[in-house]
Amino acid sequence: MSYFKNVTIIGVGLIGGSLAKALKSNNLAGYITGAGRTIDTLELALRLGVIDAIGQTLASAVTGADLVILATPVGTFERIIREIGPQLKPGAILTDVGSVKGGLIRSIERVMPSGTHYVPAHPIAGRERSGVEESTETLFRGRQCVLTPTARTDGKALNAVREMWKAAGADIIVMDAELHDKIFAAVSHLPHVAAFAMMCAVAELNTGTENYLQFSGAGFRDFTRIAASSPEMWKDIFLMNRDNLIQMIDRYVFSLNEFKNEIMSGEEKQLEKHLTKSSGLRRRME
Amino acid sequence: MSYFKNVTIIGVGLIGGSLAKALKSNNLAGYITGAGRTIDTLELALRLGVIDAIGQTLASAVTGADLVILATPVGTFERIIREIGPQLKPGAILTDVGSVKGGLIRSIERVMPSGTHYVPAHPIAGRERSGVEESTETLFRGRQCVLTPTARTDGKALNAVREMWKAAGADIIVMDAELHDKIFAAVSHLPHVAAFAMMCAVAELNTGTENYLQFSGAGFRDFTRIAASSPEMWKDIFLMNRDNLIQMIDRYVFSLNEFKNEIMSGEEKQLEKHLTKSSGLRRRME
Repeated sequence: MSYFKNVTIIGVGLIGGSLAKALKSNNLAGYITGAGRTIDTLELALRLGVIDAIGQTLASAVTGADLVILATPVGTFERIIREIGPQLKPGAILTDVGSVKGGLIRSIERVMPSGTHYVPAHPIAGRERSGVEESTETLFRGRQCVLTPTARTDGKALNAVREMWKAAGADIIVMDAELHDKIFAAVSHLPHVAAFAMMCAVAELNTGTENYLQFSGAGFRDFTRIAASSPEMWKDIFLMNRDNLIQMIDRYVFSLNEFKNEIMSGEEKQLEKHLTKSSGLRRRME
Repeated sequence: MSYFKNVTIIGVGLIGGSLAKALKSNNLAGYITGAGRTIDTLELALRLGVIDAIGQTLASAVTGADLVILATPVGTFERIIREIGPQLKPGAILTDVGSVKGGLIRSIERVMPSGTHYVPAHPIAGRERSGVEESTETLFRGRQCVLTPTARTDGKALNAVREMWKAAGADIIVMDAELHDKIFAAVSHLPHVAAFAMMCAVAELNTGTENYLQFSGAGFRDFTRIAASSPEMWKDIFLMNRDNLIQMIDRYVFSLNEFKNEIMSGEEKQLEKHLTKSSGLRRRME
Protein backbone atom coordinates (compact mmCIF):
# COMPACT_ATOMS: atom_id res chain seq x y z
CA MET A 1 0.00 0.00 0.00
CA SER A 2 1.41 3.41 -0.96
CA TYR A 3 1.76 6.02 1.74
CA PHE A 4 1.66 9.66 0.61
CA LYS A 5 3.58 11.97 2.92
CA ASN A 6 2.14 15.14 1.41
CA VAL A 7 -1.26 15.22 -0.26
CA THR A 8 -2.94 18.23 -1.84
CA ILE A 9 -6.65 18.25 -2.58
CA ILE A 10 -7.87 20.93 -4.94
CA GLY A 11 -11.61 21.39 -4.40
CA VAL A 12 -12.54 20.27 -0.88
CA GLY A 13 -16.25 19.53 -1.34
CA LEU A 14 -18.25 16.33 -0.84
CA ILE A 15 -15.90 14.18 -2.92
CA GLY A 16 -12.59 15.85 -2.10
CA GLY A 17 -13.48 16.01 1.60
CA SER A 18 -14.65 12.40 1.73
CA LEU A 19 -11.45 11.22 0.05
CA ALA A 20 -9.37 13.26 2.54
CA LYS A 21 -11.18 11.54 5.42
CA ALA A 22 -10.73 8.10 3.83
CA LEU A 23 -7.00 8.75 3.34
CA LYS A 24 -6.59 9.76 6.98
CA SER A 25 -8.61 6.96 8.48
CA ASN A 26 -6.60 4.43 6.47
CA ASN A 27 -3.27 6.05 7.38
CA LEU A 28 -2.48 6.63 3.74
CA ALA A 29 -1.66 10.33 4.06
CA GLY A 30 0.72 12.26 6.32
CA TYR A 31 -0.27 15.86 5.79
CA ILE A 32 -3.19 17.08 3.69
CA THR A 33 -3.26 20.55 2.19
CA GLY A 34 -6.53 21.87 0.78
CA ALA A 35 -6.78 24.43 -1.96
CA GLY A 36 -9.56 25.99 -4.00
CA ARG A 37 -11.53 29.02 -4.90
CA THR A 38 -13.68 29.55 -1.84
CA ILE A 39 -11.83 30.44 1.36
CA ASP A 40 -14.95 29.84 3.52
CA THR A 41 -15.09 26.23 2.35
CA LEU A 42 -11.40 25.71 3.05
CA GLU A 43 -11.68 27.27 6.50
CA LEU A 44 -14.62 25.02 7.28
CA ALA A 45 -12.64 21.99 6.08
CA LEU A 46 -9.72 23.01 8.31
CA ARG A 47 -11.99 23.54 11.32
CA LEU A 48 -13.59 20.13 10.75
CA GLY A 49 -10.15 18.51 10.64
CA VAL A 50 -10.66 17.32 7.05
CA ILE A 51 -7.44 19.05 5.96
CA ASP A 52 -4.35 20.08 7.90
CA ALA A 53 -3.58 23.33 6.11
CA ILE A 54 -4.88 25.73 3.50
CA GLY A 55 -2.75 26.49 0.46
CA GLN A 56 -2.69 30.22 -0.22
CA THR A 57 -2.36 29.73 -3.95
CA LEU A 58 -2.80 26.65 -6.10
CA ALA A 59 0.88 26.73 -7.01
CA SER A 60 2.11 26.96 -3.41
CA ALA A 61 -0.41 24.31 -2.33
CA VAL A 62 1.10 21.63 -4.58
CA THR A 63 4.75 22.41 -3.88
CA GLY A 64 6.29 19.28 -2.38
CA ALA A 65 3.11 17.21 -2.80
CA ASP A 66 3.50 13.49 -3.50
CA LEU A 67 -0.13 13.22 -4.54
CA VAL A 68 -2.41 15.92 -5.96
CA ILE A 69 -6.15 15.22 -6.25
CA LEU A 70 -8.28 17.34 -8.55
CA ALA A 71 -11.87 17.49 -7.27
CA THR A 72 -13.15 20.66 -8.89
CA PRO A 73 -15.61 20.87 -11.84
CA VAL A 74 -14.07 19.18 -14.89
CA GLY A 75 -14.08 22.42 -16.90
CA THR A 76 -11.38 23.82 -14.61
CA PHE A 77 -8.89 20.94 -14.89
CA GLU A 78 -6.81 22.08 -17.85
CA ARG A 79 -6.43 25.60 -16.51
CA ILE A 80 -5.50 24.37 -13.03
CA ILE A 81 -2.90 21.95 -14.37
CA ARG A 82 -1.32 24.70 -16.45
CA GLU A 83 -1.10 26.75 -13.24
CA ILE A 84 0.27 24.05 -10.93
CA GLY A 85 2.36 22.11 -13.46
CA PRO A 86 5.62 24.05 -12.98
CA GLN A 87 5.44 23.45 -9.18
CA LEU A 88 4.89 19.68 -9.30
CA LYS A 89 7.88 17.81 -8.00
CA PRO A 90 9.45 15.03 -10.09
CA GLY A 91 7.54 11.80 -9.59
CA ALA A 92 4.44 13.56 -8.23
CA ILE A 93 1.16 11.79 -9.00
CA LEU A 94 -1.84 13.82 -10.12
CA THR A 95 -5.24 12.16 -10.15
CA ASP A 96 -8.80 13.42 -10.53
CA VAL A 97 -12.40 12.45 -9.73
CA GLY A 98 -13.97 13.83 -12.90
CA SER A 99 -17.12 12.39 -14.49
CA VAL A 100 -15.78 12.70 -18.05
CA LYS A 101 -12.60 11.19 -19.34
CA GLY A 102 -11.86 10.80 -23.10
CA GLY A 103 -11.04 14.22 -24.55
CA LEU A 104 -10.34 15.64 -21.10
CA ILE A 105 -7.55 13.11 -20.51
CA ARG A 106 -5.95 13.98 -23.84
CA SER A 107 -5.94 17.68 -22.98
CA ILE A 108 -4.48 16.95 -19.53
CA GLU A 109 -1.76 14.67 -20.88
CA ARG A 110 -0.72 17.42 -23.28
CA VAL A 111 -0.03 19.85 -20.41
CA MET A 112 1.42 17.50 -17.74
CA PRO A 113 5.13 18.26 -17.17
CA SER A 114 7.46 15.38 -18.01
CA GLY A 115 8.52 13.37 -15.00
CA THR A 116 5.09 13.74 -13.33
CA HIS A 117 2.29 11.18 -13.57
CA TYR A 118 -1.41 11.59 -14.30
CA VAL A 119 -3.86 8.81 -13.40
CA PRO A 120 -7.47 9.38 -14.58
CA ALA A 121 -10.14 8.20 -12.11
CA HIS A 122 -13.88 8.52 -11.60
CA PRO A 123 -15.47 7.37 -8.33
CA ILE A 124 -19.20 6.75 -8.75
CA ALA A 125 -20.69 8.43 -5.71
CA GLY A 126 -24.01 10.23 -5.32
CA ARG A 127 -23.71 13.96 -5.56
CA GLU A 128 -26.98 15.81 -5.37
CA ARG A 129 -25.91 16.93 -1.93
CA SER A 130 -22.64 18.77 -1.89
CA GLY A 131 -20.19 20.54 0.37
CA VAL A 132 -17.45 19.43 2.75
CA GLU A 133 -19.97 19.36 5.63
CA GLU A 134 -21.59 16.36 3.91
CA SER A 135 -18.31 14.48 3.48
CA THR A 136 -17.76 11.10 5.07
CA GLU A 137 -14.97 8.54 4.94
CA THR A 138 -17.55 5.88 4.01
CA LEU A 139 -18.82 7.65 0.87
CA PHE A 140 -16.94 5.34 -1.49
CA ARG A 141 -17.46 2.07 0.38
CA GLY A 142 -19.05 -0.51 -1.90
CA ARG A 143 -19.18 2.01 -4.77
CA GLN A 144 -17.42 1.63 -8.07
CA CYS A 145 -14.32 3.61 -8.97
CA VAL A 146 -13.48 3.61 -12.66
CA LEU A 147 -9.84 3.99 -13.71
CA THR A 148 -9.18 4.80 -17.36
CA PRO A 149 -5.41 4.56 -17.92
CA THR A 150 -3.97 5.38 -21.33
CA ALA A 151 -0.85 4.17 -23.13
CA ARG A 152 1.01 7.02 -21.38
CA THR A 153 -0.11 6.16 -17.82
CA ASP A 154 2.72 5.14 -15.49
CA GLY A 155 2.20 1.64 -14.11
CA LYS A 156 3.41 2.39 -10.57
CA ALA A 157 1.34 5.55 -10.33
CA LEU A 158 -1.72 3.65 -11.58
CA ASN A 159 -1.16 1.04 -8.93
CA ALA A 160 -0.80 3.61 -6.16
CA VAL A 161 -4.09 5.27 -7.12
CA ARG A 162 -5.77 1.89 -7.40
CA GLU A 163 -4.62 0.96 -3.88
CA MET A 164 -5.86 4.31 -2.55
CA TRP A 165 -9.36 3.70 -3.88
CA LYS A 166 -9.37 0.11 -2.67
CA ALA A 167 -8.45 1.35 0.79
CA ALA A 168 -11.38 3.79 0.61
CA GLY A 169 -13.61 0.76 0.06
CA ALA A 170 -14.31 1.16 -3.66
CA ASP A 171 -14.56 -1.63 -6.22
CA ILE A 172 -12.05 -0.90 -8.97
CA ILE A 173 -13.05 -1.09 -12.63
CA VAL A 174 -10.48 -0.45 -15.34
CA MET A 175 -11.85 0.56 -18.71
CA ASP A 176 -11.13 2.50 -21.85
CA ALA A 177 -11.76 6.24 -21.47
CA GLU A 178 -13.92 6.47 -24.61
CA LEU A 179 -16.13 3.61 -23.44
CA HIS A 180 -16.36 5.24 -20.00
CA ASP A 181 -17.76 8.39 -21.60
CA LYS A 182 -20.33 6.46 -23.64
CA ILE A 183 -21.51 4.51 -20.60
CA PHE A 184 -21.78 7.51 -18.31
CA ALA A 185 -23.51 9.60 -20.96
CA ALA A 186 -26.25 6.96 -20.72
CA VAL A 187 -26.46 6.04 -17.03
CA SER A 188 -25.57 9.37 -15.45
CA HIS A 189 -25.40 12.40 -17.73
CA LEU A 190 -28.68 11.67 -19.56
CA PRO A 191 -30.70 11.19 -16.33
CA HIS A 192 -29.36 14.53 -15.14
CA VAL A 193 -30.40 16.33 -18.34
CA ALA A 194 -33.76 14.57 -18.08
CA ALA A 195 -34.29 15.72 -14.49
CA PHE A 196 -33.25 19.30 -15.23
CA ALA A 197 -35.58 19.35 -18.26
CA MET A 198 -38.47 17.85 -16.29
CA MET A 199 -38.28 20.60 -13.68
CA CYS A 200 -38.37 23.26 -16.39
CA ALA A 201 -41.28 21.58 -18.21
CA VAL A 202 -43.46 21.42 -15.10
CA ALA A 203 -42.38 24.32 -12.91
CA GLU A 204 -44.16 27.09 -14.73
CA LEU A 205 -47.52 25.38 -14.92
CA ASN A 206 -50.08 26.66 -12.45
CA THR A 207 -53.74 26.30 -11.63
CA GLY A 208 -54.21 30.06 -11.71
CA THR A 209 -53.49 30.39 -8.01
CA GLU A 210 -51.11 27.55 -7.22
CA ASN A 211 -48.12 25.87 -8.77
CA TYR A 212 -48.60 22.32 -10.09
CA LEU A 213 -45.53 21.27 -8.09
CA GLN A 214 -47.58 21.58 -4.92
CA PHE A 215 -49.33 18.38 -5.97
CA SER A 216 -46.22 16.35 -6.74
CA GLY A 217 -45.89 12.98 -5.05
CA ALA A 218 -42.93 10.73 -4.30
CA GLY A 219 -42.54 9.78 -7.98
CA PHE A 220 -41.91 13.32 -9.18
CA ARG A 221 -39.61 13.98 -6.24
CA ASP A 222 -37.53 10.85 -6.87
CA PHE A 223 -37.41 11.67 -10.53
CA THR A 224 -36.18 15.22 -10.14
CA ARG A 225 -33.96 14.82 -7.05
CA ILE A 226 -30.78 15.02 -9.12
CA ALA A 227 -31.94 18.31 -10.67
CA ALA A 228 -30.83 19.92 -7.40
CA SER A 229 -27.21 19.09 -8.33
CA SER A 230 -24.58 21.73 -8.99
CA PRO A 231 -25.27 23.63 -12.26
CA GLU A 232 -21.60 24.55 -12.64
CA MET A 233 -20.39 20.98 -12.30
CA TRP A 234 -23.01 19.60 -14.69
CA LYS A 235 -22.58 22.32 -17.30
CA ASP A 236 -18.93 21.27 -17.58
CA ILE A 237 -19.77 17.57 -17.76
CA PHE A 238 -22.49 18.07 -20.40
CA LEU A 239 -20.22 20.20 -22.61
CA MET A 240 -17.19 17.91 -22.23
CA ASN A 241 -19.19 14.80 -23.11
CA ARG A 242 -21.22 16.58 -25.75
CA ASP A 243 -21.26 14.07 -28.60
CA ASN A 244 -22.15 11.03 -26.50
CA LEU A 245 -24.74 12.99 -24.56
CA ILE A 246 -26.45 14.39 -27.67
CA GLN A 247 -26.74 10.84 -29.00
CA MET A 248 -28.31 9.69 -25.75
CA ILE A 249 -30.78 12.61 -25.64
CA ASP A 250 -31.84 11.71 -29.18
CA ARG A 251 -32.21 8.07 -28.21
CA TYR A 252 -34.27 9.04 -25.17
CA VAL A 253 -36.55 11.37 -27.15
CA PHE A 254 -37.06 8.55 -29.65
CA SER A 255 -38.10 6.25 -26.81
CA LEU A 256 -40.47 8.87 -25.38
CA ASN A 257 -42.05 9.29 -28.79
CA GLU A 258 -42.54 5.54 -29.15
CA PHE A 259 -44.61 5.59 -25.95
CA LYS A 260 -46.37 8.76 -27.09
CA ASN A 261 -47.40 7.17 -30.37
CA GLU A 262 -48.78 4.09 -28.66
CA ILE A 263 -50.75 6.25 -26.22
CA MET A 264 -51.99 8.53 -28.99
CA SER A 265 -53.20 5.71 -31.20
CA GLY A 266 -54.63 3.76 -28.26
CA GLU A 267 -52.63 0.61 -29.04
CA GLU A 268 -53.54 -0.95 -25.70
CA LYS A 269 -51.90 -4.36 -26.14
CA GLN A 270 -48.71 -2.93 -27.61
CA LEU A 271 -48.51 -0.26 -24.89
CA GLU A 272 -48.93 -2.78 -22.10
CA LYS A 273 -46.29 -5.05 -23.66
CA HIS A 274 -43.90 -2.10 -23.91
CA LEU A 275 -44.53 -1.04 -20.29
CA THR A 276 -44.14 -4.62 -19.10
CA LYS A 277 -40.76 -4.87 -20.80
CA SER A 278 -39.58 -1.62 -19.20
CA SER A 279 -40.93 -2.52 -15.78
CA GLY A 280 -39.28 -5.94 -15.92
CA LEU A 281 -35.94 -4.35 -16.78
CA ARG A 282 -36.19 -2.03 -13.79
CA ARG A 283 -37.24 -4.77 -11.39
CA ARG A 284 -34.22 -6.85 -12.38
CA MET A 285 -31.94 -3.96 -11.39
CA GLU A 286 -32.77 -4.10 -7.67
CA MET B 1 -67.93 11.02 11.43
CA SER B 2 -69.75 8.49 9.29
CA TYR B 3 -69.67 4.86 10.32
CA PHE B 4 -70.08 2.27 7.58
CA LYS B 5 -71.55 -0.97 8.79
CA ASN B 6 -70.74 -2.88 5.62
CA VAL B 7 -67.82 -1.92 3.40
CA THR B 8 -66.77 -3.65 0.19
CA ILE B 9 -63.32 -3.10 -1.29
CA ILE B 10 -62.85 -4.17 -4.88
CA GLY B 11 -59.14 -4.62 -5.52
CA VAL B 12 -57.35 -5.35 -2.25
CA GLY B 13 -53.81 -4.29 -3.12
CA LEU B 14 -51.53 -1.67 -1.57
CA ILE B 15 -54.13 1.12 -1.71
CA GLY B 16 -57.29 -0.92 -1.07
CA GLY B 17 -55.59 -2.85 1.72
CA SER B 18 -54.17 0.27 3.36
CA LEU B 19 -57.57 1.94 3.28
CA ALA B 20 -59.16 -1.17 4.82
CA LYS B 21 -56.63 -1.02 7.66
CA ALA B 22 -57.20 2.71 8.17
CA LEU B 23 -60.98 2.20 8.28
CA LYS B 24 -60.62 -0.52 10.92
CA SER B 25 -58.12 1.26 13.10
CA ASN B 26 -60.35 4.34 13.15
CA ASN B 27 -63.49 2.28 13.89
CA LEU B 28 -65.13 3.56 10.73
CA ALA B 29 -66.11 0.16 9.36
CA GLY B 30 -68.01 -2.76 10.82
CA TYR B 31 -67.44 -5.56 8.36
CA ILE B 32 -65.16 -5.40 5.33
CA THR B 33 -65.68 -7.66 2.33
CA GLY B 34 -62.92 -7.90 -0.24
CA ALA B 35 -63.47 -8.74 -3.87
CA GLY B 36 -61.37 -8.93 -6.99
CA ARG B 37 -59.83 -10.97 -9.71
CA THR B 38 -57.10 -12.86 -7.90
CA ILE B 39 -58.22 -15.32 -5.27
CA ASP B 40 -54.66 -15.70 -3.88
CA THR B 41 -54.56 -11.98 -3.09
CA LEU B 42 -57.94 -12.09 -1.39
CA GLU B 43 -57.00 -15.13 0.67
CA LEU B 44 -53.80 -13.42 1.75
CA ALA B 45 -55.79 -10.31 2.72
CA LEU B 46 -58.18 -12.45 4.74
CA ARG B 47 -55.33 -14.29 6.46
CA LEU B 48 -53.67 -10.96 7.32
CA GLY B 49 -56.94 -9.71 8.82
CA VAL B 50 -57.16 -6.86 6.30
CA ILE B 51 -60.65 -8.00 5.27
CA ASP B 52 -63.30 -10.02 7.10
CA ALA B 53 -64.67 -11.97 4.16
CA ILE B 54 -64.16 -12.69 0.49
CA GLY B 55 -66.97 -11.95 -1.94
CA GLN B 56 -67.45 -14.86 -4.32
CA THR B 57 -68.59 -12.59 -7.15
CA LEU B 58 -68.45 -8.84 -7.52
CA ALA B 59 -72.24 -8.66 -7.46
CA SER B 60 -72.61 -10.71 -4.28
CA ALA B 61 -69.74 -8.82 -2.64
CA VAL B 62 -71.54 -5.48 -2.85
CA THR B 63 -74.97 -6.71 -1.80
CA GLY B 64 -75.91 -4.83 1.36
CA ALA B 65 -72.78 -2.64 1.31
CA ASP B 66 -73.07 0.92 2.64
CA LEU B 67 -69.75 1.87 1.08
CA VAL B 68 -68.06 0.37 -1.98
CA ILE B 69 -64.45 1.32 -2.73
CA LEU B 70 -63.04 0.75 -6.21
CA ALA B 71 -59.29 0.18 -6.04
CA THR B 72 -58.62 -1.69 -9.29
CA PRO B 73 -56.91 -0.27 -12.42
CA VAL B 74 -59.02 2.63 -13.77
CA GLY B 75 -59.65 0.84 -17.07
CA THR B 76 -61.84 -1.68 -15.22
CA PHE B 77 -64.13 0.82 -13.46
CA GLU B 78 -66.92 1.18 -16.00
CA ARG B 79 -67.22 -2.58 -16.56
CA ILE B 80 -67.25 -3.26 -12.81
CA ILE B 81 -69.92 -0.67 -12.12
CA ARG B 82 -72.13 -2.11 -14.84
CA GLU B 83 -71.73 -5.47 -13.14
CA ILE B 84 -72.35 -4.37 -9.55
CA GLY B 85 -74.84 -1.54 -10.20
CA PRO B 86 -78.00 -3.66 -10.03
CA GLN B 87 -76.94 -4.99 -6.60
CA LEU B 88 -76.16 -1.65 -4.96
CA LYS B 89 -78.66 -0.86 -2.23
CA PRO B 90 -80.44 2.50 -2.24
CA GLY B 91 -78.27 5.17 -0.64
CA ALA B 92 -75.08 3.15 -1.12
CA ILE B 93 -71.95 5.23 -1.66
CA LEU B 94 -69.43 4.20 -4.30
CA THR B 95 -66.03 5.85 -4.30
CA ASP B 96 -62.72 5.16 -6.04
CA VAL B 97 -59.00 5.81 -5.72
CA GLY B 98 -58.29 6.29 -9.43
CA SER B 99 -55.49 8.48 -10.76
CA VAL B 100 -57.62 9.90 -13.59
CA LYS B 101 -60.90 11.67 -13.20
CA GLY B 102 -62.47 13.84 -15.96
CA GLY B 103 -63.81 11.55 -18.69
CA LEU B 104 -63.81 8.57 -16.35
CA ILE B 105 -66.22 10.31 -13.96
CA ARG B 106 -68.58 11.11 -16.80
CA SER B 107 -68.65 7.49 -17.91
CA ILE B 108 -69.22 6.31 -14.34
CA GLU B 109 -72.03 8.81 -13.68
CA ARG B 110 -73.77 7.55 -16.82
CA VAL B 111 -73.94 4.00 -15.46
CA MET B 112 -74.59 4.64 -11.73
CA PRO B 113 -78.12 3.46 -10.76
CA SER B 114 -80.37 6.24 -9.51
CA GLY B 115 -80.57 6.41 -5.72
CA THR B 116 -76.88 5.47 -5.33
CA HIS B 117 -74.05 7.97 -4.91
CA TYR B 118 -70.67 8.18 -6.59
CA VAL B 119 -67.89 10.28 -5.01
CA PRO B 120 -64.70 10.58 -7.11
CA ALA B 121 -61.46 10.55 -5.08
CA HIS B 122 -57.72 10.20 -5.68
CA PRO B 123 -55.35 9.69 -2.76
CA ILE B 124 -51.77 10.64 -3.67
CA ALA B 125 -49.74 7.77 -2.30
CA GLY B 126 -46.56 6.18 -3.64
CA ARG B 127 -47.14 3.04 -5.59
CA GLU B 128 -44.03 1.54 -7.10
CA ARG B 129 -44.37 -1.21 -4.56
CA SER B 130 -47.67 -2.98 -4.67
CA GLY B 131 -49.67 -5.77 -3.11
CA VAL B 132 -51.70 -6.15 0.07
CA GLU B 133 -48.60 -7.40 1.91
CA GLU B 134 -47.20 -3.86 1.60
CA SER B 135 -50.36 -2.21 2.93
CA THR B 136 -50.29 -0.09 6.07
CA GLU B 137 -52.87 2.04 7.88
CA THR B 138 -50.38 4.94 7.84
CA LEU B 139 -50.00 5.05 4.04
CA PHE B 140 -52.19 8.13 3.65
CA ARG B 141 -51.03 10.04 6.71
CA GLY B 142 -49.89 13.52 5.72
CA ARG B 143 -50.57 12.75 2.04
CA GLN B 144 -53.01 14.63 -0.12
CA CYS B 145 -56.36 13.19 -1.14
CA VAL B 146 -58.02 14.98 -4.03
CA LEU B 147 -61.83 14.97 -4.27
CA THR B 148 -63.36 16.03 -7.57
CA PRO B 149 -67.13 16.31 -7.04
CA THR B 150 -69.36 17.19 -9.97
CA ALA B 151 -72.72 18.94 -10.15
CA ARG B 152 -74.30 15.52 -9.65
CA THR B 153 -72.33 14.55 -6.52
CA ASP B 154 -74.51 14.13 -3.42
CA GLY B 155 -73.45 16.50 -0.61
CA LYS B 156 -73.87 14.02 2.23
CA ALA B 157 -72.02 11.28 0.38
CA LEU B 158 -69.19 13.71 -0.43
CA ASN B 159 -68.96 14.64 3.22
CA ALA B 160 -68.85 11.01 4.33
CA VAL B 161 -65.98 10.24 1.95
CA ARG B 162 -64.16 13.40 3.00
CA GLU B 163 -64.42 12.38 6.67
CA MET B 164 -63.16 8.90 5.84
CA TRP B 165 -60.00 10.28 4.21
CA LYS B 166 -59.46 12.80 6.99
CA ALA B 167 -59.66 9.95 9.50
CA ALA B 168 -57.02 8.09 7.45
CA GLY B 169 -54.79 11.11 7.99
CA ALA B 170 -54.98 12.66 4.51
CA ASP B 171 -55.15 16.37 3.69
CA ILE B 172 -58.25 16.96 1.60
CA ILE B 173 -58.13 19.00 -1.59
CA VAL B 174 -61.27 19.63 -3.59
CA MET B 175 -60.79 20.51 -7.23
CA ASP B 176 -62.34 20.36 -10.64
CA ALA B 177 -61.87 16.98 -12.34
CA GLU B 178 -60.52 18.45 -15.58
CA LEU B 179 -57.92 20.48 -13.69
CA HIS B 180 -57.02 17.38 -11.68
CA ASP B 181 -56.23 15.52 -14.89
CA LYS B 182 -54.07 18.35 -16.24
CA ILE B 183 -52.10 18.61 -13.01
CA PHE B 184 -51.51 14.88 -12.63
CA ALA B 185 -50.56 14.49 -16.28
CA ALA B 186 -47.68 16.83 -15.39
CA VAL B 187 -46.58 15.81 -11.90
CA SER B 188 -47.31 12.08 -12.03
CA HIS B 189 -48.17 10.58 -15.39
CA LEU B 190 -45.36 12.32 -17.31
CA PRO B 191 -42.62 11.25 -14.83
CA HIS B 192 -43.87 7.68 -15.19
CA VAL B 193 -43.69 7.78 -19.00
CA ALA B 194 -40.26 9.39 -18.68
CA ALA B 195 -39.00 6.64 -16.36
CA PHE B 196 -40.40 3.83 -18.53
CA ALA B 197 -38.83 5.44 -21.62
CA MET B 198 -35.48 5.94 -19.89
CA MET B 199 -35.26 2.26 -19.02
CA CYS B 200 -35.93 1.30 -22.64
CA ALA B 201 -33.42 3.85 -23.97
CA VAL B 202 -30.57 2.58 -21.80
CA ALA B 203 -31.30 -1.09 -21.16
CA GLU B 204 -30.15 -2.47 -24.47
CA LEU B 205 -26.81 -0.69 -24.53
CA ASN B 206 -23.85 -2.86 -23.70
CA THR B 207 -20.08 -2.74 -23.66
CA GLY B 208 -19.85 -5.90 -25.71
CA THR B 209 -19.74 -8.08 -22.61
CA GLU B 210 -21.71 -6.17 -19.99
CA ASN B 211 -24.86 -4.11 -19.75
CA TYR B 212 -24.48 -0.36 -19.22
CA LEU B 213 -26.94 -0.66 -16.33
CA GLN B 214 -24.24 -2.37 -14.30
CA PHE B 215 -22.58 1.04 -13.98
CA SER B 216 -25.66 2.97 -12.90
CA GLY B 217 -25.40 5.02 -9.74
CA ALA B 218 -27.96 6.45 -7.34
CA GLY B 219 -29.12 9.07 -9.85
CA PHE B 220 -30.24 6.56 -12.47
CA ARG B 221 -31.83 4.38 -9.81
CA ASP B 222 -33.81 7.27 -8.31
CA PHE B 223 -34.82 8.38 -11.77
CA THR B 224 -36.14 5.02 -12.91
CA ARG B 225 -37.54 3.67 -9.62
CA ILE B 226 -41.14 4.35 -10.72
CA ALA B 227 -40.58 2.35 -13.92
CA ALA B 228 -41.00 -0.74 -11.71
CA SER B 229 -44.69 0.23 -11.26
CA SER B 230 -47.57 -1.90 -12.53
CA PRO B 231 -47.75 -1.89 -16.35
CA GLU B 232 -51.47 -2.69 -16.27
CA MET B 233 -52.35 0.17 -13.95
CA TRP B 234 -50.26 2.69 -15.85
CA LYS B 235 -51.45 1.60 -19.30
CA ASP B 236 -54.99 2.44 -18.18
CA ILE B 237 -53.97 5.79 -16.69
CA PHE B 238 -51.99 6.81 -19.77
CA LEU B 239 -54.81 5.92 -22.14
CA MET B 240 -57.53 7.55 -20.02
CA ASN B 241 -55.58 10.80 -19.65
CA ARG B 242 -54.33 10.68 -23.21
CA ASP B 243 -54.79 14.27 -24.39
CA ASN B 244 -53.25 15.91 -21.32
CA LEU B 245 -50.42 13.42 -21.26
CA ILE B 246 -49.55 13.85 -24.94
CA GLN B 247 -49.36 17.61 -24.36
CA MET B 248 -47.01 17.08 -21.44
CA ILE B 249 -44.77 14.64 -23.36
CA ASP B 250 -44.49 17.24 -26.12
CA ARG B 251 -43.68 19.94 -23.58
CA TYR B 252 -41.03 17.71 -21.99
CA VAL B 253 -39.43 16.82 -25.32
CA PHE B 254 -39.35 20.53 -26.14
CA SER B 255 -37.55 21.19 -22.84
CA LEU B 256 -35.06 18.34 -23.50
CA ASN B 257 -34.33 19.78 -26.92
CA GLU B 258 -33.71 23.24 -25.47
CA PHE B 259 -30.97 21.73 -23.30
CA LYS B 260 -29.72 19.66 -26.22
CA ASN B 261 -29.37 22.72 -28.41
CA GLU B 262 -27.45 24.64 -25.76
CA ILE B 263 -25.12 21.68 -25.24
CA MET B 264 -24.68 21.15 -28.98
CA SER B 265 -23.86 24.78 -29.72
CA GLY B 266 -21.67 25.10 -26.62
CA GLU B 267 -23.60 28.08 -25.23
CA GLU B 268 -21.87 27.82 -21.87
CA LYS B 269 -23.35 30.90 -20.16
CA GLN B 270 -26.88 30.18 -21.36
CA LEU B 271 -26.60 26.51 -20.38
CA GLU B 272 -25.39 27.34 -16.89
CA LYS B 273 -28.19 29.91 -16.46
CA HIS B 274 -30.74 27.34 -17.58
CA LEU B 275 -29.36 24.65 -15.22
CA THR B 276 -29.25 27.14 -12.35
CA LYS B 277 -32.90 27.98 -12.88
CA SER B 278 -33.88 24.31 -12.87
CA SER B 279 -31.72 23.47 -9.88
CA GLY B 280 -33.15 26.41 -7.92
CA LEU B 281 -36.70 25.24 -8.65
CA ARG B 282 -35.90 21.76 -7.37
CA ARG B 283 -34.16 23.01 -4.24
CA ARG B 284 -37.19 25.11 -3.33
CA MET B 285 -39.35 21.95 -3.42
CA GLU B 286 -37.68 20.26 -0.46
